[in-house]
Amino acid sequence: MSKIHVTIWNEYVHERAEGEYGERLRSFYPQGMHNALKEELAADDLEISAVSLDMPEQGLPDDLLQKTDVLMWWGHVAHGKVADELVDKIQQRVLAGMGLIVLHSGHYSKIFRRLTGTSCSLRWRELGEKERVWVVDPQHPIARGVPDSFVVPNTEMYGEPFGIPEDAHPVFMSWYEGGNLFRSGITLRRGAGKIFYFSPGHESFPIYHNPDVVKVLANAVRWAAPDLSPQKTDCWDCDPAVEPVNTSR
Amino acid sequence: MSKIHVTIWNEYVHERAEGEYGERLRSFYPQGMHNALKEELAADDLEISAVSLDMPEQGLPDDLLQKTDVLMWWGHVAHGKVADELVDKIQQRVLAGMGLIVLHSGHYSKIFRRLTGTSCSLRWRELGEKERVWVVDPQHPIARGVPDSFVVPNTEMYGEPFGIPEDAHPVFMSWYEGGNLFRSGITLRRGAGKIFYFSPGHESFPIYHNPDVVKVLANAVRWAAPDLSPQKTDCWDCDPAVEPVNTSR
Amino acid sequence: MSKIHVTIWNEYVHERAEGEYGERLRSFYPQGMHNALKEELAADDLEISAVSLDMPEQGLPDDLLQKTDVLMWWGHVAHGKVADELVDKIQQRVLAGMGLIVLHSGHYSKIFRRLTGTSCSLRWRELGEKERVWVVDPQHPIARGVPDSFVVPNTEMYGEPFGIPEDAHPVFMSWYEGGNLFRSGITLRRGAGKIFYFSPGHESFPIYHNPDVVKVLANAVRWAAPDLSPQKTDCWDCDPAVEPVNTSR
Amino acid sequence: MSKIHVTIWNEYVHERAEGEYGERLRSFYPQGMHNALKEELAADDLEISAVSLDMPEQGLPDDLLQKTDVLMWWGHVAHGKVADELVDKIQQRVLAGMGLIVLHSGHYSKIFRRLTGTSCSLRWRELGEKERVWVVDPQHPIARGVPDSFVVPNTEMYGEPFGIPEDAHPVFMSWYEGGNLFRSGITLRRGAGKIFYFSPGHESFPIYHNPDVVKVLANAVRWAAPDLSPQKTDCWDCDPAVEPVNTSR
Repeated sequence: MSKIHVTIWNEYVHERAEGEYGERLRSFYPQGMHNALKEELAADDLEISAVSLDMPEQGLPDDLLQKTDVLMWWGHVAHGKVADELVDKIQQRVLAGMGLIVLHSGHYSKIFRRLTGTSCSLRWRELGEKERVWVVDPQHPIARGVPDSFVVPNTEMYGEPFGIPEDAHPVFMSWYEGGNLFRSGITLRRGAGKIFYFSPGHESFPIYHNPDVVKVLANAVRWAAPDLSPQKTDCWDCDPAVEPVNTSR
Repeated sequence: MSKIHVTIWNEYVHERAEGEYGERLRSFYPQGMHNALKEELAADDLEISAVSLDMPEQGLPDDLLQKTDVLMWWGHVAHGKVADELVDKIQQRVLAGMGLIVLHSGHYSKIFRRLTGTSCSLRWRELGEKERVWVVDPQHPIARGVPDSFVVPNTEMYGEPFGIPEDAHPVFMSWYEGGNLFRSGITLRRGAGKIFYFSPGHESFPIYHNPDVVKVLANAVRWAAPDLSPQKTDCWDCDPAVEPVNTSR
Repeated sequence: MSKIHVTIWNEYVHERAEGEYGERLRSFYPQGMHNALKEELAADDLEISAVSLDMPEQGLPDDLLQKTDVLMWWGHVAHGKVADELVDKIQQRVLAGMGLIVLHSGHYSKIFRRLTGTSCSLRWRELGEKERVWVVDPQHPIARGVPDSFVVPNTEMYGEPFGIPEDAHPVFMSWYEGGNLFRSGITLRRGAGKIFYFSPGHESFPIYHNPDVVKVLANAVRWAAPDLSPQKTDCWDCDPAVEPVNTSR
Repeated sequence: MSKIHVTIWNEYVHERAEGEYGERLRSFYPQGMHNALKEELAADDLEISAVSLDMPEQGLPDDLLQKTDVLMWWGHVAHGKVADELVDKIQQRVLAGMGLIVLHSGHYSKIFRRLTGTSCSLRWRELGEKERVWVVDPQHPIARGVPDSFVVPNTEMYGEPFGIPEDAHPVFMSWYEGGNLFRSGITLRRGAGKIFYFSPGHESFPIYHNPDVVKVLANAVRWAAPDLSPQKTDCWDCDPAVEPVNTSR
């Protein structure tokens, strides 16, 4: 069985910040969140690449993008630096079947807003409060083996209303100590591509080392992988007609 | 009761073509499809503007866009000429509640693809064949007073598969003489804005003078109009929390 | 303008219980929840009837059901006593356009399960804890004039996972003191009928005197009311065909 | 790898009719449609049972139903004879994860109406006209290897409007010689169970020997099969709360 090619993209800015703030992040993400996730998700059926915005072609040269089965995306302060041409290419790949997993502040990334068409806006608050993530669709493959609920002890609050399309399907919802709630794990389909958004993952806490968070992302990678190459229709500008047309009118 | 402000935007290229082709179109659309639709849709509860790409600010200066309740959009060969900044503004207006009615080849317009996130691709064939439009959701407000089915005697075929999101709700579907079918009238909601796509309207035939087509569009304008100004949430970066947070952890 | 005919149906069992428990409920619902709601919702555009299971024909004789525009339903311990024939009739009325508002423990009523086809199961806990109801779709007509969030000080907890169909659209979600959350206000459409489920309304607390709860229900009544009589298709067993059929094959 | 247990249920009435009509049907379905389908679908990964209404416990004793992964259902004139208790059991199995494939006139079966909550009504016409089935979601697993469109040379027409819920997802749509169209292949999910409705299969023509129809059903069986046993939530009446509740209020 061939492996699933996973590419984890990270803007990789926060974890390289100077001073105490950056040092704190490097204490749990010494080589960035993308490399931490690469290690946490390592498995025999996955071939994982960890890339970042500062690499050539913004980390996603054509050959890598073309062979990627599932792209994971973490961005925040550098959304605006991602080239529109790259966003176009990623969108085409998703429509053709590539899975996409958008993480945390990636709700405002160009690619997520491109694929939703909506504001993707939400409330937020940074007190380091407790989040409890609930499984709301226990039958969904992404919820397999995940407890009924689990706790992220300290996080940024992301709260409703969340500006997403009507076909966003909730698999997880989060309860916050400070009184808010949020559809924290939703699925969408665009063209042949499966999309999963998952909000836990604020950079200031070691959330991508949380075993339940890792379990969700590990499930999501397998769910989002295209099972088969996308099917093409035979023709588009298809003349002649398949039934007789009276052109004498 | 205040009127609904409708703006009909047309790229206005085909109807001004030189030679026999253009003359044919001008025989039923002497001042373009936008002005033909303005006349057909004229009613006491509507205040209609007909604008085109060649006008200042591409026909949609800010003050007109801001007061537009429902925007109707016809484009084809000039999709690429519409400024991205204008598309951004229209998207914001839709998310804030403006209705949008996308016509015929507008399926490939920047604004429709922006709001769907999908390919919006479809099959097509230009034989001037017969199309029969069926009401598939007879309870929908846009279907009020429309016959169970009606005929567009000569048209371009638009056929499935249609690359639209999963939450596209079909109100009309079309049967074609040449053996194809199509979800020819679909609704979507993005943010506070209601969107209706309607495929009949190929420029080479006087389809916007067809009373059933006009009835559908007249219904759609009333359906898409925002009933109330959009509701704002009180805050986004909302500190303090609404429930006590233990920040000593 | 003709009035909207609202019928509030209540099994009316808890409020007539003997002893201290019943006395407590009668202290805020002296004539039952249906009559309390009738008073709270009273308005010039509404014609409200309050009925209960113990009345002739279980409170819904044909003539009343036929003229009802919006039916509100509160049931709990007596779900099993509602006649299947009555459930059939209510379902037919909903499919034909009657609005339906299902309250609190009505999630397990025969009519709600009939219209959803799902388990409608949920978690619950009766500690009298605090519930905070959030608007998650601020543009929805049912959310008009409702604050971003409001508190029900003491209630029964209803928690996810909630066994509802995929097209259930959340307008409200609830946060609970005890760590749970719930899609507490959802809309559905079945046939021509609009359906709203709203969970606040545990009988042991005076929740239907809470002004925010009443505001939601008042909005829901107007939203669920059919604007027009349902449209009939011309025929079903429709012979002859609308296009020529070659029957010589 | 364990096999998928498929049970094909047929009311088995038409194929046993007396006279010329029955003889005609027996010429292509000598042992009924269920046994014809059993032969057509035979494959190494499937364990198929063919049962009928006249068998003990209406063909679905508890032990068979419990081990069925995917149930296929063909009914028409005998819908009313199926016991409500059996329908209850089938519904529970679907909500718990069993796949369900409803065929042709099964749109009016008790189990399909139970799971949809809608009228499931449609137009029909029995002229033996031509049907052309189009793939409208070429990326869907049920469409794998199916041509862009295929022809059923003679069939009963089933036409829109089709009274199904809003979350019915179209994979196939049919074009009819006589001018109608229909969402002929739709998917739904209810609880953990996947549901597929497919309209081709009128008893008077050998449609279940059509290779394209068989391909669709073969795909549907694999798609509808539960990949894993359904996941249970840990508790429902879950006391104590997961976060502290102040019960002194």
